[in-house]
Amino acid sequence: MIENQQQFASDNYAGICPEAWASMAEANQGHVPAYGEDPWTTRASDAFRRLFGTACEVFFVFNGTAANSLALAALCQSYHSVICAAVAHVETDECGAPEFFSNGSKLLVAPGGGSKLTPAAIRAIATSRSDIHYPKPRVVTITQPTETGQVYDLEELRALSATCRELGLRLHMDGARFANACASLGCSPAEMTWQAGVEVLCFGGTKNGLAVGEAILFFDPALAEDFDYRCKQAGQLASKMRFLSAPWTGMLDSGAWLRNGAHANACARRLAAQIEDLPGVTLMFPVQANAVFLQMAPAVQEALRGRGWRFYTFIGGGARFMFAWDSRPDRVDELARDLREIVTGAAVPL
Amino acid sequence: MIENQQQFASDNYAGICPEAWASMAEANQGHVPAYGEDPWTTRASDAFRRLFGTACEVFFVFNGTAANSLALAALCQSYHSVICAAVAHVETDECGAPEFFSNGSKLLVAPGGGSKLTPAAIRAIATSRSDIHYPKPRVVTITQPTETGQVYDLEELRALSATCRELGLRLHMDGARFANACASLGCSPAEMTWQAGVEVLCFGGTKNGLAVGEAILFFDPALAEDFDYRCKQAGQLASKMRFLSAPWTGMLDSGAWLRNGAHANACARRLAAQIEDLPGVTLMFPVQANAVFLQMAPAVQEALRGRGWRFYTFIGGGARFMFAWDSRPDRVDELARDLREIVTGAAVPL
Amino acid sequence: MIENQQQFASDNYAGICPEAWASMAEANQGHVPAYGEDPWTTRASDAFRRLFGTACEVFFVFNGTAANSLALAALCQSYHSVICAAVAHVETDECGAPEFFSNGSKLLVAPGGGSKLTPAAIRAIATSRSDIHYPKPRVVTITQPTETGQVYDLEELRALSATCRELGLRLHMDGARFANACASLGCSPAEMTWQAGVEVLCFGGTKNGLAVGEAILFFDPALAEDFDYRCKQAGQLASKMRFLSAPWTGMLDSGAWLRNGAHANACARRLAAQIEDLPGVTLMFPVQANAVFLQMAPAVQEALRGRGWRFYTFIGGGARFMFAWDSRPDRVDELARDLREIVTGAAVPL
Amino acid sequence: MIENQQQFASDNYAGICPEAWASMAEANQGHVPAYGEDPWTTRASDAFRRLFGTACEVFFVFNGTAANSLALAALCQSYHSVICAAVAHVETDECGAPEFFSNGSKLLVAPGGGSKLTPAAIRAIATSRSDIHYPKPRVVTITQPTETGQVYDLEELRALSATCRELGLRLHMDGARFANACASLGCSPAEMTWQAGVEVLCFGGTKNGLAVGEAILFFDPALAEDFDYRCKQAGQLASKMRFLSAPWTGMLDSGAWLRNGAHANACARRLAAQIEDLPGVTLMFPVQANAVFLQMAPAVQEALRGRGWRFYTFIGGGARFMFAWDSRPDRVDELARDLREIVTGAAVPL
Repeated sequence: MIENQQQFASDNYAGICPEAWASMAEANQGHVPAYGEDPWTTRASDAFRRLFGTACEVFFVFNGTAANSLALAALCQSYHSVICAAVAHVETDECGAPEFFSNGSKLLVAPGGGSKLTPAAIRAIATSRSDIHYPKPRVVTITQPTETGQVYDLEELRALSATCRELGLRLHMDGARFANACASLGCSPAEMTWQAGVEVLCFGGTKNGLAVGEAILFFDPALAEDFDYRCKQAGQLASKMRFLSAPWTGMLDSGAWLRNGAHANACARRLAAQIEDLPGVTLMFPVQANAVFLQMAPAVQEALRGRGWRFYTFIGGGARFMFAWDSRPDRVDELARDLREIVTGAAVPL
Repeated sequence: MIENQQQFASDNYAGICPEAWASMAEANQGHVPAYGEDPWTTRASDAFRRLFGTACEVFFVFNGTAANSLALAALCQSYHSVICAAVAHVETDECGAPEFFSNGSKLLVAPGGGSKLTPAAIRAIATSRSDIHYPKPRVVTITQPTETGQVYDLEELRALSATCRELGLRLHMDGARFANACASLGCSPAEMTWQAGVEVLCFGGTKNGLAVGEAILFFDPALAEDFDYRCKQAGQLASKMRFLSAPWTGMLDSGAWLRNGAHANACARRLAAQIEDLPGVTLMFPVQANAVFLQMAPAVQEALRGRGWRFYTFIGGGARFMFAWDSRPDRVDELARDLREIVTGAAVPL
Repeated sequence: MIENQQQFASDNYAGICPEAWASMAEANQGHVPAYGEDPWTTRASDAFRRLFGTACEVFFVFNGTAANSLALAALCQSYHSVICAAVAHVETDECGAPEFFSNGSKLLVAPGGGSKLTPAAIRAIATSRSDIHYPKPRVVTITQPTETGQVYDLEELRALSATCRELGLRLHMDGARFANACASLGCSPAEMTWQAGVEVLCFGGTKNGLAVGEAILFFDPALAEDFDYRCKQAGQLASKMRFLSAPWTGMLDSGAWLRNGAHANACARRLAAQIEDLPGVTLMFPVQANAVFLQMAPAVQEALRGRGWRFYTFIGGGARFMFAWDSRPDRVDELARDLREIVTGAAVPL
Repeated sequence: MIENQQQFASDNYAGICPEAWASMAEANQGHVPAYGEDPWTTRASDAFRRLFGTACEVFFVFNGTAANSLALAALCQSYHSVICAAVAHVETDECGAPEFFSNGSKLLVAPGGGSKLTPAAIRAIATSRSDIHYPKPRVVTITQPTETGQVYDLEELRALSATCRELGLRLHMDGARFANACASLGCSPAEMTWQAGVEVLCFGGTKNGLAVGEAILFFDPALAEDFDYRCKQAGQLASKMRFLSAPWTGMLDSGAWLRNGAHANACARRLAAQIEDLPGVTLMFPVQANAVFLQMAPAVQEALRGRGWRFYTFIGGGARFMFAWDSRPDRVDELARDLREIVTGAAVPL
């Protein structure tokens, strides 16, 4: 029933990585107090503080939708608004969760199709209205890397946060693929977050190799006031918390979090390198993380599907390939080969 | 760091049972589609339908707070109200989650201290007001077994549901410890739910031996309309869904779900049997599931704690002991022995 | 179609008092900017500041339910709770509005039937739980006068606010009949509010003689941050604001607000004085404002109704008579006479 | 303090029209039951039913923001979405109220700048996504006339409703200026609403000449189930309801509602007719209701302002003039004259 042929449709098609699994197994010993009063949760929180080199507040929740929504709800009231890119996951793929958790905060989408926000775009939105008939901008959320696999560099991040500070806006980072961004920039987690002015980070665990769970880090502890109550009320407090927290210890202590990200990025580059010269196949975005978006003729897409490949086309109609911690290089090569055969072969009229 | 001495403070201090673990391990093979489009989720849903002997709609969410709140929100609008017992978990231990998920539905607490609702109590609340200045009663929620370990028998359930139908109320069952109730009554899941008039069930997985996750079963498919959207928006749709659903297959197919419940119940009876003759120690409630509540002098509680025992006293000040799927009979006996020594010994002035 | 016989069932059966009407007529001249940017709204706000002798922030909303709910929502987050008396209007007669506007804040009802909160009751509730499984107490709301017509004296208010400060709780006053309380105590509005530690006041206009509208006063301007956005989003910003604000100028400048309250109180005392010696008719509460609650046999109630009197019995089954700014003393006397005839006459077997 | 010179910045700068005022005065007699149990409310509801020639359910609320939000919340759940035009008031000027009242329903804005929705635009949005990661389209809301003064004709309305029915969408009409649309089309209210497939109408009273208040009409009574509870909980139930409802009787019985709309429309046409030949001044939209939008050079706007004229420019940067029930033709002529002088005079370099 399980597909034998590995796919690159999504990085959440992958399972649990060995380090996370081992920590779960280790944590599955005997009885410990519930709701985070266990030693594993303390260890995992400390591991995050060490990794980020700061005394941040750490919370473990079930998934990315909840992590983002809870963080945003903590930063704004219902009559505030959140500035985001048009392709931001919070806008396009969370079924109105940010609006639900915040009881109505509106997402204000930056004009222009880019996946990255710019200081100018933020300023334009934040200053376009200042009357009470429109929700007051209060938070900027950026995705790092973005939904199209772009990575904000440190300078860009610092410019964004300077703009936010100037305009009285909070800065939140959706790091569903945070590890991929770190691996891409080769910088430290601290440099990419609080040192660059990010105030709250959602650090993605699921796509990084966990079974379930994301970490929310508040670099300004004042912003985390009563956040534990918020999580509890919103159905995001795990009773057997150790199974959400312990896997992080395995990931962080072993460095697997970064290795996993680096591997997935490498697979993306591997594919890109093999197809860049193909006629009629265009890279839609520079490959900076673990995603490759390819523009190609419908017939080519069709032919690829005919050879058993699964992929999504929801961004600009292009074919998205998203690599995971366990993507197999030989399958990457197969995909490149199939694509080459289709494009260069006689069977497909382009 | 882990406590060596098994405690009975809560059944969610326990870990993952072997059957659930094995299924997780088995599911952790290769890639599968996300968000429930995987074969494990189909299998788990089918397993529930077989177990209950009906074509119910099945949803997998992260925890009990969310399961109850989502189910109740599906059954009422914000200006409706939910009738529950004073000690119901939704009222006392979910930090306002039902009100949050429903955007304001009020919980109407039955007068009287009992953990069981009665037809008379429901009728009294439901008919006490009929003006628009008070939220309109729309749902009754019962906990099976109750927070004090009482089990509604089939006749009681049928009487409750008849009252609900007569009054136009929906009937929801919080089955955080559903397996314990089944084991206690020796009846089938079907008899205890849809055949008795229960319309929506939250079937607890975490306390039954899973790492994380509860199942929500709608016996009337019409009530489940768009419920998948509701879960998604509320941050309760797991991307790697197989790790929420697969463990259920192990539990249901092997019968572990029921064995686990029966074992925990047996431990409770084992403790009760050993202490029922102790002077100054009183069973607060009949032992019908996996909980034992003991009224005892503060000094006795103190002495028990002195011997390393952990327990909660939030219901009526009594000591609560709650047994899990892996509670060790020898530790039950130790607890009984310690209590006996304390009560009968000279060291404690009662 | 209009009832010719004045009733005392509720003080919102009354119409618009002359001073409010005159101000509306005066304000209905020509064009002015909308949404509060008009001179009437400025004048009314200033009139409140003069009356209270402090630079409070003033907002005009449509009704008492919204006023209370918006004020409470401004003081707490969804996972916080509000301490109130069991008979508080927010608990019993606003259809879950506080929970709706706050997205889930729970009302924690003080045990005991009294309509007044006490420092002890507040402390008991606020300190009974301190875990994240229960909403964190954040606000105390008191009704002045209470729903049974009791008035907190200044000493009581100061004691309450001292307790609130000590426990980190905000203090909100539901002043749906604020004028009646002022008239009763003979103190200044300032003494009864900010000087006694009240932080936010909902000053009732409708029952005081307006067509529609309440004023919300924040004595700590910091608490009013972005409150105008909150009102707008919640559908409580009038476009033709002058018709909500102007009537207040007539009320406050002329002193009608206080005269109206004093008159209604006098009617209540007038009734009480005439029936205090009646056998089988008991004052349920001391008459301190504009309400008289009378315990009497069902047959007496029936007989009163037979003579055309309307009244509610939702508090303790007693007959409530509530006097308005235009209650006619001769009708009060008629009521007293009817009651006396019924009770002392031969026709009614008691 | 009041501006002597009538402005056309907004139709809610106007006061209360004589017919509404007279009804308020008439209603301000004696005591009547509160919360809509009074004869005026019955009369007003019946007047609506007569006017629309159908047994619709009628509710009176305080303002347009609440009317629209409550109606939309009644038609969808939090995980549903509402299709609207980009310039729809619900999207641009209600501070997130629809999202707040519905607890998160997302507004999906039709691409393209037009103020009118088309069947094609609705279809495109409604069919663009069908996965649970995006809110499910459930309602279409149209503004009649639109925010730019365009009026859907009957054929357009019928085409929209046919599309809605086909796609399983509800059709809501924001009729903040409903009377202007009726006057413009010369059709009956019935033809423009339920006979054309509109299911819920918000009939604007404030802009039509009332002090405060809108009516919500449900043409399908089933959709109005428990709507009275919804209004109450949301702070939209007036206690002295007669002052919200009675004015409607004056408006509807006398025909003032339609005369007022027709007069405002005539003023708009009067302005348009006088300036259509002006060089450098362009009508941005056909004048079909009571609005005139004029594109002109910034210097001309400046000069107009210099002559004391107030107007908004939030749509496309053009100058908006919006006429009310009491707009004075001589002032319209003054405006036209001033504009002509500015444009044709020597003083203004264009």
